[in-house]
Amino acid sequence: MQKGDLIESHQRINPYIHNTPILSSQLINKIAGANIFFKCENFQKMGAFKMRGATNAIMQLTEAQRQKGVVTHSSENFAQALSLAAKKLGIKAYIVMPSTAPQVKKDAVKEYGGKISESEPTLEAREKLANEIKQREGATFIHPYNNIDVIIGNGTACKELLESQPNLDYVFTPVGGGGLIAGTALSAYYFGNNCKVVGGEPLEADDAYRSLISGNIETNITTNTIADGLKTNLGDVTFPIIQKHVEKIIRVTEKEIVDAMRLIWERLKIVSEPSSAVALAAMLKEKELFKNKNIGIVISGGNVDLNKLPFNF
Amino acid sequence: MQKGDLIESHQRINPYIHNTPILSSQLINKIAGANIFFKCENFQKMGAFKMRGATNAIMQLTEAQRQKGVVTHSSENFAQALSLAAKKLGIKAYIVMPSTAPQVKKDAVKEYGGKISESEPTLEAREKLANEIKQREGATFIHPYNNIDVIIGNGTACKELLESQPNLDYVFTPVGGGGLIAGTALSAYYFGNNCKVVGGEPLEADDAYRSLISGNIETNITTNTIADGLKTNLGDVTFPIIQKHVEKIIRVTEKEIVDAMRLIWERLKIVSEPSSAVALAAMLKEKELFKNKNIGIVISGGNVDLNKLPFNF
Repeated sequence: MQKGDLIESHQRINPYIHNTPILSSQLINKIAGANIFFKCENFQKMGAFKMRGATNAIMQLTEAQRQKGVVTHSSENFAQALSLAAKKLGIKAYIVMPSTAPQVKKDAVKEYGGKISESEPTLEAREKLANEIKQREGATFIHPYNNIDVIIGNGTACKELLESQPNLDYVFTPVGGGGLIAGTALSAYYFGNNCKVVGGEPLEADDAYRSLISGNIETNITTNTIADGLKTNLGDVTFPIIQKHVEKIIRVTEKEIVDAMRLIWERLKIVSEPSSAVALAAMLKEKELFKNKNIGIVISGGNVDLNKLPFNF
Repeated sequence: MQKGDLIESHQRINPYIHNTPILSSQLINKIAGANIFFKCENFQKMGAFKMRGATNAIMQLTEAQRQKGVVTHSSENFAQALSLAAKKLGIKAYIVMPSTAPQVKKDAVKEYGGKISESEPTLEAREKLANEIKQREGATFIHPYNNIDVIIGNGTACKELLESQPNLDYVFTPVGGGGLIAGTALSAYYFGNNCKVVGGEPLEADDAYRSLISGNIETNITTNTIADGLKTNLGDVTFPIIQKHVEKIIRVTEKEIVDAMRLIWERLKIVSEPSSAVALAAMLKEKELFKNKNIGIVISGGNVDLNKLPFNF
């Protein structure tokens, strides 16, 4: 992984993604005691940063590989991202989803042209079925985050943010499997001006926090969090990058997540996911450390179920 | 009212407002069968187009008038808009609000520096108290919509939209007291290329629709609508402009409003008011009339109570 890889990735995927807007709020800055620039990937195509990594990974395939299509297992945004990226690039996408996935998620994948295969709702069953499809169709397996091309593609969001705001002191992202924060950390390292990267993680799914302490990939014991994009564990590709390049990870409670989400919705007027609010919640939790700093926060996505919002409770 | 008034108004208020973003959605275009450009005034300062009209009205006052401040009666966005515009221009704003107004609305006015006086919750009581303050303080009364300077200021949103998209065939706005649609109609007339203006109105508060038919200012009998910014009646300044320059008004049901609001939130990923959705609902209701046309829709504001969203019902 070198600086040139990020630059080439960005040039490659540029026709297929949005350079998303950067928003600020005077009131949030006042509360935070810092200057925050929100990189709004909720406005990205299909509604999340994952469009970047999925597009980059597919574009790295050979022509022979492209003819056979791609396969992944995901019930979340990556399923939609791979489906849409494949459609735009004219190839097939096979998506393994647990049979228990919400209908709205299945419909979104179908809308983007993904071919769904349903599995039992265990990781083993998902992996087995994805492997069967890989064998049968000759499709290339693309992991939702533990894949260096996905990570580099995701990193282009932070690259754009730094092109607009070159003097950021910190960039915050949420941490799930680590595909966003690893890419962000690489971009901050190569394109930032001594810019450090901090992760936000739910206390209810704090595998990355514990992994950095123990030096091994820890798994989540509970995943009882509203931030449903952050329930996954780190992988052997994301973890070493995080170990090397991420400053720290700050854990937040469910209430802190909802409070931060409310601030984002009320003040920035954007529809964004609970996972996105975890980064702001983390910054606010330790705001004394970041006083008067210039801070980027990646709003990871905006695909929420409007029937299940957490505000009225 | 001449073209120059709109140009001068825009130059005057420009340092105090945002040139708000214009968003589109391929899926909404597909559903509508047209090319829609959403002018997102939910991202305007204080969260609504009313910042434009309030700022313009205050800036038209003489220095002697400014020293005495301004007064209005409103429980909605105009109360916040006049408070913030007055604060930015260094003058006092007296806001008469009904005692029954939600605490969150009173807090917002206070946050922007408005001085609240509470009245009984009737129009007579509000007008009486506003008049008393006018007499006592020498403040200038600024009506929330029935004021030509407010109307012209509001019209700058459509002016910006046409500067970005000069070939719009139609611009849609919601209709309450008529301050937005009247300003929009003037801008479309002076700056559009044969651009027509259409209003959306709740069936539950269809005074403007009936006024255009009867030729007189009709009042609302019921106002049982989720679009709480649209419960007011037209005024003697807004009505003649609407009569002269608005193509038609389309009435929509409460379900049509919520369905359109859901589309805006899910697809544009923006937090916006039910009133804003009325314009899209109107367009979709008669979409056969607007097939393949270029259409602007003004998203009027984004100040919603997240504890009272209409989706889960």
